[in-house]
Amino acid sequence: MSMQQQHDQLATLAARFREVRQRTEALCEPLNPEDCVIQSMPDVSPTRWHLAHTTWFFETFLLKPYVKDWKSPPLYEHLFNSYYQSIGQPFTRSRRGLLSRPTVGEIHAYRRQVDRAMMRLLADDAVDEHPDLARLVEIGLHHEQQHQELILTDIKHVFSCNPIFPAYQEVVTQVSLPDRRCEAFFAFEEGLREIGKAASEDFAYDNEYPRHRVFLEGFSLQSRLVTNGEYLEFVEDGGYERPELWLSLGWQTVQEQQWQAPLYWMRSDVGWREFTLSGLRALCEEEPVCHVSYFEADAFARWAGARLPTEQEWEVAAEGVPIEGNFVEREVFHPIPCESADTDSTHAPRQLFGDVWEWTASPYCPYPGYAQPEGAIGEYNGKFMCNQYVLRGGSCVSSRSHLRDTYRNFFPPDARWQFSGIRLAYEISPPAR
Amino acid sequence: MSMQQQHDQLATLAARFREVRQRTEALCEPLNPEDCVIQSMPDVSPTRWHLAHTTWFFETFLLKPYVKDWKSPPLYEHLFNSYYQSIGQPFTRSRRGLLSRPTVGEIHAYRRQVDRAMMRLLADDAVDEHPDLARLVEIGLHHEQQHQELILTDIKHVFSCNPIFPAYQEVVTQVSLPDRRCEAFFAFEEGLREIGKAASEDFAYDNEYPRHRVFLEGFSLQSRLVTNGEYLEFVEDGGYERPELWLSLGWQTVQEQQWQAPLYWMRSDVGWREFTLSGLRALCEEEPVCHVSYFEADAFARWAGARLPTEQEWEVAAEGVPIEGNFVEREVFHPIPCESADTDSTHAPRQLFGDVWEWTASPYCPYPGYAQPEGAIGEYNGKFMCNQYVLRGGSCVSSRSHLRDTYRNFFPPDARWQFSGIRLAYEISPPAR
Amino acid sequence: MSMQQQHDQLATLAARFREVRQRTEALCEPLNPEDCVIQSMPDVSPTRWHLAHTTWFFETFLLKPYVKDWKSPPLYEHLFNSYYQSIGQPFTRSRRGLLSRPTVGEIHAYRRQVDRAMMRLLADDAVDEHPDLARLVEIGLHHEQQHQELILTDIKHVFSCNPIFPAYQEVVTQVSLPDRRCEAFFAFEEGLREIGKAASEDFAYDNEYPRHRVFLEGFSLQSRLVTNGEYLEFVEDGGYERPELWLSLGWQTVQEQQWQAPLYWMRSDVGWREFTLSGLRALCEEEPVCHVSYFEADAFARWAGARLPTEQEWEVAAEGVPIEGNFVEREVFHPIPCESADTDSTHAPRQLFGDVWEWTASPYCPYPGYAQPEGAIGEYNGKFMCNQYVLRGGSCVSSRSHLRDTYRNFFPPDARWQFSGIRLAYEISPPAR
Amino acid sequence: MSMQQQHDQLATLAARFREVRQRTEALCEPLNPEDCVIQSMPDVSPTRWHLAHTTWFFETFLLKPYVKDWKSPPLYEHLFNSYYQSIGQPFTRSRRGLLSRPTVGEIHAYRRQVDRAMMRLLADDAVDEHPDLARLVEIGLHHEQQHQELILTDIKHVFSCNPIFPAYQEVVTQVSLPDRRCEAFFAFEEGLREIGKAASEDFAYDNEYPRHRVFLEGFSLQSRLVTNGEYLEFVEDGGYERPELWLSLGWQTVQEQQWQAPLYWMRSDVGWREFTLSGLRALCEEEPVCHVSYFEADAFARWAGARLPTEQEWEVAAEGVPIEGNFVEREVFHPIPCESADTDSTHAPRQLFGDVWEWTASPYCPYPGYAQPEGAIGEYNGKFMCNQYVLRGGSCVSSRSHLRDTYRNFFPPDARWQFSGIRLAYEISPPAR
Repeated sequence: MSMQQQHDQLATLAARFREVRQRTEALCEPLNPEDCVIQSMPDVSPTRWHLAHTTWFFETFLLKPYVKDWKSPPLYEHLFNSYYQSIGQPFTRSRRGLLSRPTVGEIHAYRRQVDRAMMRLLADDAVDEHPDLARLVEIGLHHEQQHQELILTDIKHVFSCNPIFPAYQEVVTQVSLPDRRCEAFFAFEEGLREIGKAASEDFAYDNEYPRHRVFLEGFSLQSRLVTNGEYLEFVEDGGYERPELWLSLGWQTVQEQQWQAPLYWMRSDVGWREFTLSGLRALCEEEPVCHVSYFEADAFARWAGARLPTEQEWEVAAEGVPIEGNFVEREVFHPIPCESADTDSTHAPRQLFGDVWEWTASPYCPYPGYAQPEGAIGEYNGKFMCNQYVLRGGSCVSSRSHLRDTYRNFFPPDARWQFSGIRLAYEISPPAR
Repeated sequence: MSMQQQHDQLATLAARFREVRQRTEALCEPLNPEDCVIQSMPDVSPTRWHLAHTTWFFETFLLKPYVKDWKSPPLYEHLFNSYYQSIGQPFTRSRRGLLSRPTVGEIHAYRRQVDRAMMRLLADDAVDEHPDLARLVEIGLHHEQQHQELILTDIKHVFSCNPIFPAYQEVVTQVSLPDRRCEAFFAFEEGLREIGKAASEDFAYDNEYPRHRVFLEGFSLQSRLVTNGEYLEFVEDGGYERPELWLSLGWQTVQEQQWQAPLYWMRSDVGWREFTLSGLRALCEEEPVCHVSYFEADAFARWAGARLPTEQEWEVAAEGVPIEGNFVEREVFHPIPCESADTDSTHAPRQLFGDVWEWTASPYCPYPGYAQPEGAIGEYNGKFMCNQYVLRGGSCVSSRSHLRDTYRNFFPPDARWQFSGIRLAYEISPPAR
Repeated sequence: MSMQQQHDQLATLAARFREVRQRTEALCEPLNPEDCVIQSMPDVSPTRWHLAHTTWFFETFLLKPYVKDWKSPPLYEHLFNSYYQSIGQPFTRSRRGLLSRPTVGEIHAYRRQVDRAMMRLLADDAVDEHPDLARLVEIGLHHEQQHQELILTDIKHVFSCNPIFPAYQEVVTQVSLPDRRCEAFFAFEEGLREIGKAASEDFAYDNEYPRHRVFLEGFSLQSRLVTNGEYLEFVEDGGYERPELWLSLGWQTVQEQQWQAPLYWMRSDVGWREFTLSGLRALCEEEPVCHVSYFEADAFARWAGARLPTEQEWEVAAEGVPIEGNFVEREVFHPIPCESADTDSTHAPRQLFGDVWEWTASPYCPYPGYAQPEGAIGEYNGKFMCNQYVLRGGSCVSSRSHLRDTYRNFFPPDARWQFSGIRLAYEISPPAR
Repeated sequence: MSMQQQHDQLATLAARFREVRQRTEALCEPLNPEDCVIQSMPDVSPTRWHLAHTTWFFETFLLKPYVKDWKSPPLYEHLFNSYYQSIGQPFTRSRRGLLSRPTVGEIHAYRRQVDRAMMRLLADDAVDEHPDLARLVEIGLHHEQQHQELILTDIKHVFSCNPIFPAYQEVVTQVSLPDRRCEAFFAFEEGLREIGKAASEDFAYDNEYPRHRVFLEGFSLQSRLVTNGEYLEFVEDGGYERPELWLSLGWQTVQEQQWQAPLYWMRSDVGWREFTLSGLRALCEEEPVCHVSYFEADAFARWAGARLPTEQEWEVAAEGVPIEGNFVEREVFHPIPCESADTDSTHAPRQLFGDVWEWTASPYCPYPGYAQPEGAIGEYNGKFMCNQYVLRGGSCVSSRSHLRDTYRNFFPPDARWQFSGIRLAYEISPPAR
């Protein structure tokens, strides 16, 4: 790369840096300082922590190594480290909600301080001394986009614990509903396929590499997401009371947690209601079901006589499909019904990207030949490859520019606070109904 | 009482109402909204909850019964009820820290709304229709004073969880230290005594009634509080490693909680430090030991060859002693050394009031003939008479006007986050040392 | 004491030793080896542990100090120590049920070995060298009698966990029922009284000393125990659903443990049944209620418009009353109805001794001037004086020779597996009904 | 199949039935009744439960459907059901150790009663009416063999909790040790392979079907099991203190459980010792490491610069290898060193079968096209396919006749009480050392 090209690349990166960082702050605008402190369960982090941790990431991986005499505010390294053991003992995750200081205002000042230093770094003539710089900024921006999604996901959980049911933002535009369900399935033939990220391309996480061959039997994939209406049939058919529909661990969880419906569904005198980022409202049957665990997705599929797709199947189906859909940029913050009922003329399943993360049947494992990066950055993905399942496709609170067809998200099978939903698969072809 | 007297009484009460309510808010001035949200353990309540709950108390026991068409903000009755089962299901105590709404600002608005209505009620000509009114306001004000103390006690715990160790308020005035310890003990003869609140006097809680006879053996009471220096000797003598010094439950707690010193003591390279409302600082050996549990107070007494006084003994010693000392009005927010070394010339033990609540050897029980009041107000004291111990005398975060020699505070034997300390007692006379 | 008197005393003691030790083994005869291993909850100990621990007690406090070169089987000192920290780290209490070795047979062999050595020691001419010997044997025998009671109490709990509901022993003799309830109350006048064990008398535990003065207000005591029938009225009146009847901790326990009736009561299609040491059978309304916690006793008393007696009141009422009643020697192993309905002609409350331990309103505390014995024997009582309540009078599984009017038993307020019941008290005189 | 063939098949099955059932009882001969009752952790079942549950299996799946008017002892169906929800609510697993009745003797009587009925059933002329019979007996016998293994695995855990460290059986024969380590690796080329059980063959569990194609990259497999000596190097290199070697969940488990070595290893003044079914003894460095969790196996592999094999890789390597090794029939009950050091001349990895179950890197998932059987038998495998890892090859406490190269065992990644060990794998070829 010529020096000019490098500088152009850095200028583009600097622009993107500004944009991503500002979006994080824009997402927090509807929130009060009080909102930003609360940790409603160990999996949830307070907004103020997300604001600081994403900043800490740039500070730790870029400013400390590349800016001479860089000084961090005392204890920030400890307080805002998430899980990077090689950087030092992080402050205990489950205690993040015990901290009020630094305040939200002080954290915004910290952000500005780091942003200024980052802009200087990206404008620096000496940047060619740091070949890793662009790659690390790229990782930092994708990391921040993940936390943008978590800010919304987590504040939804926080608000749901309050009997007042605050709204993050009232969404006024009414979404048009489909007049009928699209029922088609897409069939894929058996064969040796390739999945995973090919080398020397655009940004991807380490867990998407290497591209490799897999043998797949023939399968069919549902053309759209499972809806609330369909899931309601499962609930009303005693889905949560029939152990034979569940994995053993799933049934144990149903009993212990007393699950009776997806997270955020509430039964009331006037029918089912659902808590959303726009507050509590009547359940819309046409919308994709959301906030279900892997256990629920798996049980629903068994009840429906189907199964969940593997991540290999999903990726084969998604390859080459344009990344279009209901993302955070649309500012609905909730999944919407499958907009086109006219599935016969389409050439790919709908709603593959956006709306809800789709649970796959695949435990989160290293791909054959996977190599964990050296150093702290290597702690990003590999060490979590145990007792989690892969989800694909992104959700209504993901950024469009953050997603790819090879993107592997992962959560434990009992997690429900993510915007996670269901798409069914069958062997070869769907059974007659 | 004549109508004029009644109106005078109400005018006095109104002035006191204003003063107490304003003091609560003054105590919260050094706090940010973020600080006011946090619940660092189930026993601690967020500041915003204290601000709202004390207001709820006036609303529930005065405005709802006495003000026509009084309307409470939706759900406040549920959210800010503490434990009054007869008023409805309170919001779960351990989840108070999950709420950010109503915000601190909204709660201040709620306070103002209730205060205005209370002032109208106290100015109302029709007040003679409500014979209970003055008594209920009186309870409400004492209730609010208890919560003022808890606001400080709780925020100290909240701040102690933050490795930054924020200060609530820097106290600059240096307290003068005594040049020597006062060692004297006061001896009291055996006999039939009376303790408890006599009827038809000033305000007291139900648990202080009735005044009754008790037979006491002769005893001696330490003339001052046990100091940090003395407690440090116990620590350094292996006090926390010797099961024979402890109650069985106490020893179990020491093991499980890994106690090695009082709460807020920290061992550092440069010696012991103590977290205070003015931040972290070197341990002052002359100050009274503070933030010890009953278990620690009892073990220390056994180590010292003494015992804790019973609440009857304490009250007999305190009867008639002027209520002077280091209270919240002094704005030190921390116990201070016994100021007079000249104990020979005094006629009563020092430091009986203020500085630290003194653990007694007495389980919290009803007095003979105790009658629990009817209705929700009856839930104030009686139902807690189990597995708690009585503490006497008030602390450096209590209001002077809140205290009496008959006042019975109570906490479970493992509680340490209160400003609680130790005074020793002996049978008849102290042994030679 | 002359040498002859000493030898006579030892001969008597030896005979008593044989008798008490044999009774322990007789109590275990209906049990299989499998039964003797199980620990159904942390408070329960396996029968084999009781058999060994009582033996360990004689070995530790008598054979080791007094028999030259005494050798204990390896690890028995560790395995069968209960809680004597000064003797060494006891094997963890809650893990007693994980041990199968030494087997029950090996433990019986251990008992025989210790018994033979004890008999030699008691026959020894050199016994006058050990002035403590008789006192320690006496303690050991009372200790063993406590464990005899626990063997029955604990095996009842073990069997109750088995849906087969095994019977310890079928009791065939039908107990005659009273034709009417005895309703009288006994009134006692106020005054300065003395309670506690007087010095230089027969055996008593340290916690019964010293005899001391207490001032009591006038009170009345129920002439008999509360019956199942009366308690059933409380249950059917919603006793377990009304928080206003309960101490705060009690109500919390009711909710957490989902209590709906006394332990061992079971609701069935054909009415209430009760599990007993003779198996499952219909609830007998005339029998004293049994297996209630302090919380339930207290709530029942509140519901009945009464209260529980203090231990001082109980002892004043029991002083001089003959120790007669339904003890373990009767081999019914269950409380029986108050046999005489003719209460007018009696001069003391009935059922004070035997049937069920009676909860008092008194937290377990040291008496004024209480001195804990030196050494390991000092761990017997004093260290448990916290968060427990005193029970009085003994039960249907206590030995008559083990009981006294000054005897203080103690358990935490949520304990229900003991044979514990209720007697009511009132201020001065019972209210009209 | 001709009638004669059917009768011959049943006669063979009957002989096998007798043999397997007798072996179970032979394995219990060294145990006392007390031993057979204990459940040392929720995963462990008491011996008496294993004896009864295997019998219940034949009763439930064969005698109840096929024997007219078959009567089960009351409650046995409830007590001895493990997890078959479709048969009724099983007795709570974690409470199995609370039961002493039916006694071990009564359970042996139950076994004899069921055995007699089974023998009659297998001799019955009408057997051709029941086409499933042979298959169900076959499953029952394999099921019983699994529980034979668990009887030994579980009693080892039970005995390990006893500080006396009882021996199940003293093994006197000294195992000859290898004079040097066998270091070779076997390389396998990439390609499309087939794994899984082919249809219409001998017995296999449902989870081994269907046979299917997988694409494998080239890999190498260690020629023998990892030894105690090698694992000790990992321990002494700080393996248990270095988070970078562990999966995130694994590190969390290490911290919470305070793991410092494999289960049953104990550090003593005279070096490492290991608890075995022959009691406590010095650690033998040449023996395969045993009783490690998946987390430890994975961390060891990372430390060694290798990885664990996938189950597909393992099966490809094991296909066609004779099932020879150290099984339960050898009665050593402990893994033994790799006997031949002469690895150059062998054509397959050693110790694939027997000694220890080998952790694979494969989460336990359904094979493509897996179909869960109908009815209660369908609960055997499928519902456990979540958060478990596959182990292959059998152990020193497995029956040889129970194993196959397609056999899939599975346990959660933190399980250590199984006889589980490690074999390493590499991409393509092992790195230079």
